[in-house]
Amino acid sequence: MRNFNEQTITDAVIQRFSSSTEPRVKEICTSLVKHLHDFVRDVRPSYEEWEYAIEFLTRTGQICDGNRQEFVLLSDTLGVSMLVDAVNNPVGGNITQSTVLGPFYVENPEVFPLGADIAGAMRGTPAYVSGSVSSEDGSPLGGAIVDVWHSDDDGFYDVQQLDKLGGNAGRGRFIADEQGRFHFWTVKPTCYPVPTDGPVGEMLNAQGRHPWRPAHLHFMIHAAGHRKLVTHVFDRADKYLDSDAVFGVKDELVRDYPDHPPGVAPDGSKRDTTWSTIEYDFVMAKAG
Amino acid sequence: MRNFNEQTITDAVIQRFSSSTEPRVKEICTSLVKHLHDFVRDVRPSYEEWEYAIEFLTRTGQICDGNRQEFVLLSDTLGVSMLVDAVNNPVGGNITQSTVLGPFYVENPEVFPLGADIAGAMRGTPAYVSGSVSSEDGSPLGGAIVDVWHSDDDGFYDVQQLDKLGGNAGRGRFIADEQGRFHFWTVKPTCYPVPTDGPVGEMLNAQGRHPWRPAHLHFMIHAAGHRKLVTHVFDRADKYLDSDAVFGVKDELVRDYPDHPPGVAPDGSKRDTTWSTIEYDFVMAKAG
Repeated sequence: MRNFNEQTITDAVIQRFSSSTEPRVKEICTSLVKHLHDFVRDVRPSYEEWEYAIEFLTRTGQICDGNRQEFVLLSDTLGVSMLVDAVNNPVGGNITQSTVLGPFYVENPEVFPLGADIAGAMRGTPAYVSGSVSSEDGSPLGGAIVDVWHSDDDGFYDVQQLDKLGGNAGRGRFIADEQGRFHFWTVKPTCYPVPTDGPVGEMLNAQGRHPWRPAHLHFMIHAAGHRKLVTHVFDRADKYLDSDAVFGVKDELVRDYPDHPPGVAPDGSKRDTTWSTIEYDFVMAKAG
Repeated sequence: MRNFNEQTITDAVIQRFSSSTEPRVKEICTSLVKHLHDFVRDVRPSYEEWEYAIEFLTRTGQICDGNRQEFVLLSDTLGVSMLVDAVNNPVGGNITQSTVLGPFYVENPEVFPLGADIAGAMRGTPAYVSGSVSSEDGSPLGGAIVDVWHSDDDGFYDVQQLDKLGGNAGRGRFIADEQGRFHFWTVKPTCYPVPTDGPVGEMLNAQGRHPWRPAHLHFMIHAAGHRKLVTHVFDRADKYLDSDAVFGVKDELVRDYPDHPPGVAPDGSKRDTTWSTIEYDFVMAKAG
């Protein structure tokens, strides 16, 4: 097999997978080559454009490190992450909807007792966050593992400013009580731009797009016998809800983040400045 | 705009490019998102598969350095490079066909006088390489810049073994004489596997493919008023001509690499071991 032209090369490449002993690899690679070649035949890139693409992908990989994942950001900003979310989470019933993971989750976050303040050195309006985790049949999921992470008042996550903050902040793991309830203190997140100092920022700029995400708390929740839930709770007052740079907003995930005057909080603590409440009751889908 | 599902998200992403002032960016990104989303809807990746893809792309970027370009190798092994070649080089007339650049070209190679031996510390059968560069109308292209690079007897390029070789070898630039002719000595290249110690090797293995390329010399030729020519001259005796890992073989680029007993070479030099000849007359397309 030789002398391939722009019509014959696609089948020639796919033919090479015929000896693979992994059916799913064969299925994914066959589809990848079909769609990738269709894209190339469609846009007919010049050599210079192909070289730019190679260099763009290379830089996207090279800017990644333990605290930054630019390929996740690329997937997010091209709508791929939400599409993967959609094909894995058919909507239905009372189950809490999922949304993007984003690039700032850190594995094995520090475990805090219920009621703890995870703000660390982050600045912002103190926020009392509370809620519950239950199964789709209504039963409470005591012992559910609730991971939370979010940006600060300046729109940055802790991992973007570890030197300044002196360690993790606005990030932690809680274990829901017997009634599936949790509560903790942190600071109220604000809207923020996704990182624009790398290849994805260059792409957004060329596409004429803004890089902003509406204010939100991230949650990842695990409960025995249930599917992992990755989602956000958005601030209803945010101006970017209808133009989220990563297409992650769903109405059911939007809540008020009301501010309150100084006084006594639900946990009995006395607040001498303005503080806020954020509340969400999560419903988990049964596994399998 | 929110609450996207797997059908509506594609148009939502494309709509974001509507403010771009760069029509070609809009065109390429619109096509990219359509085909990329079609691919995702087609294979319906699990979260684990999506994470593997993110991690695969990240590793592909991170293994690249000044002497290794794994994204070019990925493009080559998925047939994308030959497809880009095909859409940029309509076949026709007497013009020499092009093929893949590959990942081992180095900018600004050392210039050697005609007749020089560029083998350096590379081992292999000495080869006398000669040929000519002419325009599609038959006129010789004196002063054409002829870059050549190739692997050694063990199947490695110089940039893969710089420590062992002590510098560049099997690589150089020649300036064709007034008749458009060139000749030089080097060693005869052999077939070789593309690098398999990175993500692309992992992919080829999962796909059940071999990583071999048939023996070839690379050429990149520039001549005033003509289109750059990037091509190979393959060895007709090679067993991988019909299964080149990067789909680059074209019949018109295949030549005999005949061996000769000790004796006098065409340049009058006396050879006391077996030596080989490789010859090709290149025809360049006029620019524009």
